[in-house]
Amino acid sequence: MATVSAPKQVSVKEDAEALRKACQGWGTDEKAIIAVLGHRNAAQRRQIRHVYEEIYQEDLIKRLESELSGHFEKAVYRWILDPPDRDAVLANVELKKSGNKHHVIVEISCTKNPEELLAIRRAYHARYKRSLEEEVAYHTKGDTRRLLVALVSAFRYYGEEINTTLAKSEAKKLHEAIKDKKFGNEDVIRILSTRSIAQLLATFNCYREQEGTSITKNLPKDSSDEYIAMLRMAVRCLKDPKKYFEKVLRRSIEGIGTDEDALTRVIVTRAEKDLKEIKELYHKRNNVPLDKAVDKETSGDYKDMLLTLLGNEV
Amino acid sequence: MATVSAPKQVSVKEDAEALRKACQGWGTDEKAIIAVLGHRNAAQRRQIRHVYEEIYQEDLIKRLESELSGHFEKAVYRWILDPPDRDAVLANVELKKSGNKHHVIVEISCTKNPEELLAIRRAYHARYKRSLEEEVAYHTKGDTRRLLVALVSAFRYYGEEINTTLAKSEAKKLHEAIKDKKFGNEDVIRILSTRSIAQLLATFNCYREQEGTSITKNLPKDSSDEYIAMLRMAVRCLKDPKKYFEKVLRRSIEGIGTDEDALTRVIVTRAEKDLKEIKELYHKRNNVPLDKAVDKETSGDYKDMLLTLLGNEV
Repeated sequence: MATVSAPKQVSVKEDAEALRKACQGWGTDEKAIIAVLGHRNAAQRRQIRHVYEEIYQEDLIKRLESELSGHFEKAVYRWILDPPDRDAVLANVELKKSGNKHHVIVEISCTKNPEELLAIRRAYHARYKRSLEEEVAYHTKGDTRRLLVALVSAFRYYGEEINTTLAKSEAKKLHEAIKDKKFGNEDVIRILSTRSIAQLLATFNCYREQEGTSITKNLPKDSSDEYIAMLRMAVRCLKDPKKYFEKVLRRSIEGIGTDEDALTRVIVTRAEKDLKEIKELYHKRNNVPLDKAVDKETSGDYKDMLLTLLGNEV
Repeated sequence: MATVSAPKQVSVKEDAEALRKACQGWGTDEKAIIAVLGHRNAAQRRQIRHVYEEIYQEDLIKRLESELSGHFEKAVYRWILDPPDRDAVLANVELKKSGNKHHVIVEISCTKNPEELLAIRRAYHARYKRSLEEEVAYHTKGDTRRLLVALVSAFRYYGEEINTTLAKSEAKKLHEAIKDKKFGNEDVIRILSTRSIAQLLATFNCYREQEGTSITKNLPKDSSDEYIAMLRMAVRCLKDPKKYFEKVLRRSIEGIGTDEDALTRVIVTRAEKDLKEIKELYHKRNNVPLDKAVDKETSGDYKDMLLTLLGNEV
């Protein structure tokens, strides 16, 4: 369930006016911006952007970018976008970074349902005049390329039908590859990137029954090999996205310093979906409510924005 | 342009009645079936199926299958289906065959536009409760798997923008791989399966300019290696689908015996699209009109059906 609270009926025109007012004159009224945008769902935000542009002949997103700064600006910018467009931006930002770490690509391709992933690929076309898989393939190589291109290109079947014989035989195939440390094995990539989620869950269950331990436990945990790290992450995302997101939040908060990019990304992308359940998982796992942890780790308008999206009145 | 002639306004109810009448009593009135279905476009055929089922509580397709036989039955069955559903069936029929020859998969993935290919993947889900790429990956291996899965999973960008520098460098990459006989090279598969058609045409042009010969001429022609044959076919489909289809028609007709499957497939899948241009290419290349060649090579109701779809009154 969502954590964000949006009234069913809103006056989009009044919202546009309030945002305009918040951006005018000396200084910016960040609280007013949070009061409006932090309580609007994706469809309402889209309408606000349209109406704002119609009335003021200016792009609301560009205006906000020029008014705001730092982590708060990033959170508002991510939040205001349509979800598929936002994920296209997140993917592109990661692909432009140097290095071979592509965790956001794995997250996007393995936690979205087939129609959502397709919408992201459409949004990528529209925004960057290229296909997502084209960019992923261009920026990667070897096993990483084979895994990531297959994951982002998938249009998985999303029915609930399960083939138990197949689950058993593919659990065995996965185990053999892992046992022999053949992590880039063709079948491993094929199974993870093409099977339906229902079928994969059946396969992971068979794996545990056959081997007495879970596939995630069998995959090297603190691998310096980025490919193996992404493979493990893909399995975790496919198996249990909520549990995966709880862990990303935990990691982003724990230790010295905060990983604001990860914290913002999970809160913004899940606030309209399942952040309520993720919060519950977090509370159970860490003995502290997520809101409290966020309150402690962040500050200023950025903090207010995140707490609002988490369902608090600030 | 299409060759099939369908009136703009038709009485779907009368069509359903005519088909019912053609199927009742002693024998089947094949001519009546051709007179109706051979002159209806995809949307009209879909409506006829719906109305027929509503009135007579029976599936028109199943009824026709029980009434008709041989190549004529196959042609009618292929024709009556929605285009994406028909391609899903064609793909599935090929995947169920033993052997590693998957020409129809290459044809479907490289001659459809991105939205058409996506519609076929949806139709595959609906009909077979699996994804197309899942099936392709399961039934193939090695280089063939890597090429085919990438081709069927592609959702290419379909804009006209071209990056000339990229076209030059990728033409070089293609040439180097071909020169070294590394046909399964990662970059070859990446370029062919992810780049937009506009970008690929620019790359193929650069190839010809740089090497003085076309990429198709550089790829071994009569290779006994099925992978190389499919790679060459993919390039031909991506470069010029109409020219490719003309060749399929020519091959299906020339020599001793006729390849009815290929002949039916091209006529049925292109009759509502570009069969007119393909016919012109055929005539120019073979000095004989396609209708005349079909008339000579086929017979009976099957012949009448094909000639009708080719735009003739029979």
